Amino acid sequence: MPRSTFYHHRIAFADCDPARIVFYPRYFDWFDRASERLFRERGMAWPELWAHYQLAGFPIVDASAKFLGPARFGDTITLESWVGEWRSKLFIVEHRVHNGGDIIVEGRELRIWALRNPNDPEGMKAGVIPPEIIERFRD
Amino acid sequence: MPRSTFYHHRIAFADCDPARIVFYPRYFDWFDRASERLFRERGMAWPELWAHYQLAGFPIVDASAKFLGPARFGDTITLESWVGEWRSKLFIVEHRVHNGGDIIVEGRELRIWALRNPNDPEGMKAGVIPPEIIERFRD
Amino acid sequence: MPRSTFYHHRIAFADCDPARIVFYPRYFDWFDRASERLFRERGMAWPELWAHYQLAGFPIVDASAKFLGPARFGDTITLESWVGEWRSKLFIVEHRVHNGGDIIVEGRELRIWALRNPNDPEGMKAGVIPPEIIERFRD
Amino acid sequence: MPRSTFYHHRIAFADCDPARIVFYPRYFDWFDRASERLFRERGMAWPELWAHYQLAGFPIVDASAKFLGPARFGDTITLESWVGEWRSKLFIVEHRVHNGGDIIVEGRELRIWALRNPNDPEGMKAGVIPPEIIERFRD
Repeated sequence: MPRSTFYHHRIAFADCDPARIVFYPRYFDWFDRASERLFRERGMAWPELWAHYQLAGFPIVDASAKFLGPARFGDTITLESWVGEWRSKLFIVEHRVHNGGDIIVEGRELRIWALRNPNDPEGMKAGVIPPEIIERFRD
Repeated sequence: MPRSTFYHHRIAFADCDPARIVFYPRYFDWFDRASERLFRERGMAWPELWAHYQLAGFPIVDASAKFLGPARFGDTITLESWVGEWRSKLFIVEHRVHNGGDIIVEGRELRIWALRNPNDPEGMKAGVIPPEIIERFRD
Repeated sequence: MPRSTFYHHRIAFADCDPARIVFYPRYFDWFDRASERLFRERGMAWPELWAHYQLAGFPIVDASAKFLGPARFGDTITLESWVGEWRSKLFIVEHRVHNGGDIIVEGRELRIWALRNPNDPEGMKAGVIPPEIIERFRD
Repeated sequence: MPRSTFYHHRIAFADCDPARIVFYPRYFDWFDRASERLFRERGMAWPELWAHYQLAGFPIVDASAKFLGPARFGDTITLESWVGEWRSKLFIVEHRVHNGGDIIVEGRELRIWALRNPNDPEGMKAGVIPPEIIERFRD
């Protein structure tokens, strides 16, 4: 079982919608931030990592979430995230949101290891994930 | 096949991330707006509809998207949305994003018909969707 | 008096906070989109314009807004925007938000004509605004 | 000189625009969160405070920011915030953003002490700020 990263967040006024709960697309914004944090905690900050490997980034090919319960204005949630699987050119980040004793959201992102195309500044193509990256996620 | 709602949007600077493509959580924000528009085009604006049926809203229990291609700063996309299924207490909204001749995103939201709890301003519970609502979506 | 650009927007659930009014930072997001639209309506879409003049963009040095009244979930607002002033290396975009018969927000952005630094991909410096740009805004 | 609240934040991919710097409206979102934190650190969390005083919230009547320098993807900024002034029915929150040794943003929000209108769930009106609130901000 890989090591998770944890992030504690107090639900702010700025996070909530007229129903006084978190506006659901915001969870995906938090997933993106958690994926970035997951690398940073292993010593691989995205700006430097992407420059070093000539990456365009880790674009998403699939994202999903199940919402099992709400988070309300003033609640303190914990976002738990880990890499669930490494494939040749993509990896899966799993997310779980805890509120009080309950799991309120379960999410998943499929992300590509996307190399820049040197002949096209806007282009990118999937590359094979170097083994030393996967190694850094082994505890 | 139910009638879709269509929304044309020019990808703005404000929509894009450092990779110069749409930041992916934004698609879910657009899905939420499309779901609202779907009702409004049938004469059921959410503020009035929710007040009339004492609804807390249409909270999401499941949301997902497949990203098949990018939308770049300056592209004009079309968001196509329709109700794919009505169940007793929930409904499924389907979303498809077109860019040029391609489908670049396929998304889905499961939404509950959530009644306010008169004894608890923060509470809500799923209710049966009235038949006249479903009728309004029949063409 | 320069010609304004107008944008009509129905306040969506996604725009509102727990007080059921527009969350105020969103107005600045709309200002940014309006500034982009102002150029596009004159035939100068930002992606092409920036590539042609080797611009990093039009970064903000000052932004402000007075909030005179609310916009509520379901209201239809009109955002009116125009370039209020051209200086050598910066320009001022004025914004006015109408709701019903009232002006509810008055905003202003000071934006720099920021050239890329060819020796530093992250650097930028203010350049003199070419006269043909200002000419395009003359009616 | 009143005591400030400080918040350290690593600039994430999710915060940045195609120019690889923070998208400027986001600073106002952070100002809103900082204003909430300022009260919470003095033992006055907004959800409980608003319920106790029958407040609709602290809506903004004026917001402004000067942008003196950029914050880039990967930078760590510090947001410093304090109440600069208490008036009868409104208060001014001052914000300063530090990046490295530089001040990169100076912002200000004028906020109303807005009471709910018991006869109109959507209405609100400015009330006199109770002295015990101001007292809690005295060090």
